[in-house]
Amino acid sequence: MKIPAQVTKPLLITMVGSGNVATHLSIAFEKAGHAVQAVYSRQLAHAQALARKLQNAVASDSLNFSSSQPADIYLLCLNDAAIPEVINQMQFPPDSLVVHTSGSLSMNVLFTTQKFKKGVFYPVQTFSKNQAVDLANTPIAIEAEDDTTVRILQDLAHSISSSVFSLSSQDRKILHLAAVFACNFTNHLLGISQEILQGHGLDPVLLKPLVESTITKAMKNNPYEVQTGPAVRGDQNIMQAQMQFLAPNTNYQQLYKLISLSIQNQKK
Amino acid sequence: MKIPAQVTKPLLITMVGSGNVATHLSIAFEKAGHAVQAVYSRQLAHAQALARKLQNAVASDSLNFSSSQPADIYLLCLNDAAIPEVINQMQFPPDSLVVHTSGSLSMNVLFTTQKFKKGVFYPVQTFSKNQAVDLANTPIAIEAEDDTTVRILQDLAHSISSSVFSLSSQDRKILHLAAVFACNFTNHLLGISQEILQGHGLDPVLLKPLVESTITKAMKNNPYEVQTGPAVRGDQNIMQAQMQFLAPNTNYQQLYKLISLSIQNQKK
Repeated sequence: MKIPAQVTKPLLITMVGSGNVATHLSIAFEKAGHAVQAVYSRQLAHAQALARKLQNAVASDSLNFSSSQPADIYLLCLNDAAIPEVINQMQFPPDSLVVHTSGSLSMNVLFTTQKFKKGVFYPVQTFSKNQAVDLANTPIAIEAEDDTTVRILQDLAHSISSSVFSLSSQDRKILHLAAVFACNFTNHLLGISQEILQGHGLDPVLLKPLVESTITKAMKNNPYEVQTGPAVRGDQNIMQAQMQFLAPNTNYQQLYKLISLSIQNQKK
Repeated sequence: MKIPAQVTKPLLITMVGSGNVATHLSIAFEKAGHAVQAVYSRQLAHAQALARKLQNAVASDSLNFSSSQPADIYLLCLNDAAIPEVINQMQFPPDSLVVHTSGSLSMNVLFTTQKFKKGVFYPVQTFSKNQAVDLANTPIAIEAEDDTTVRILQDLAHSISSSVFSLSSQDRKILHLAAVFACNFTNHLLGISQEILQGHGLDPVLLKPLVESTITKAMKNNPYEVQTGPAVRGDQNIMQAQMQFLAPNTNYQQLYKLISLSIQNQKK
């Protein structure tokens, strides 16, 4: 789906948070024709740093949003741990729409005695400082309490991405668990791999084409069906030799043993 | 380095094996101006299938190469397990150059009573049937007994790839171990991730952009320094919930626990 340069209904957005997620989303929202009117951060300097990258955003370190001009959406781009705390201290205008961007928290964390509408706007992506993100192809998972709110969030998501879908809190938890295996855990294994290479004066770049092919192949197929290596071949000689080589690090040795076993169990 | 269309010294090559590695290499060698004169496979039909893709290659299921026209190089593209067995049954012309393509076997596996020169020509890549491989950017690791042989193999490697380097048997073993973590093990984790998603009716494509960003980021940085997720944040609530969710599968639960622990140990 082509991303419209100007959305049919531009929204007024207040960003709660000023980190990587807030920065990438704010810039994309403005490009799509929305207005980020305010940026909140506990540390005013952080809010100001993001506001400077935007057209007309006011920076603030006050959690009282009920007194300022009401936004259409208050988008919480905060660490998971900070959300329950912040949500209880904030004062939102009645009937405002308050939305979090977390993959792992249910929509329920937004329930308070305040009367605002709740929603989730979760971009399934990793955001880093000063690293471009292809938001146009980033899936965005939407959840809300009623159809009207779902449509508002879907329109907002479609204005920056071609991949928008509805996902319940329960399914988002499953997606997040899958992401822990596919991203957090694979990153750690790539770390161990680089550590092994560098510990012996070998350049990690030697494995780059192989890693890229492996990932491409895994994403095109059922990874179980394209599994290669000593474990799936049942090559005991190499497995024993590699485990012995890892022996000084019992942690890596255990990892090697357990993942190899898991590969072999899968084969059965 | 630009790949020359015609090499300065075209070589006569006999391929021992007709699988994916033999196929991809043979075609690349011919494109670079070398001549693959013969293809051997235990199963004649397999040798013939590869020979048909080449210009003037003869297919054979005989292990006696001493009677045919001598090749400059006999390239063993065989499973690791098959090499020691095959090498003892083969008859090579004296002073011929016999080279294996394995990442995990030392050059020593080629020692027999026969008088031929030994070498290793290891493309650090994964080869699949009917799937294009960017050999031009695939690192090729070379090992040989003497400088003349090293130069022959380096020239051969440079004729198909811009990334050629010397690697001892010991260092190649380390590279192979690192590849097991970075490729074989990550592939398995991607398999678990897809299994979790599909088990709940979710499309694995939802994680594709996130996986791709994660790998790109890990290859550009020290992965330990860009680690994200519940384990590195020490988010016990999410870790407990995710382990409980995995509980019916003790294997996956153990993996989750051990990798999370390894991430946390790394942080210290």
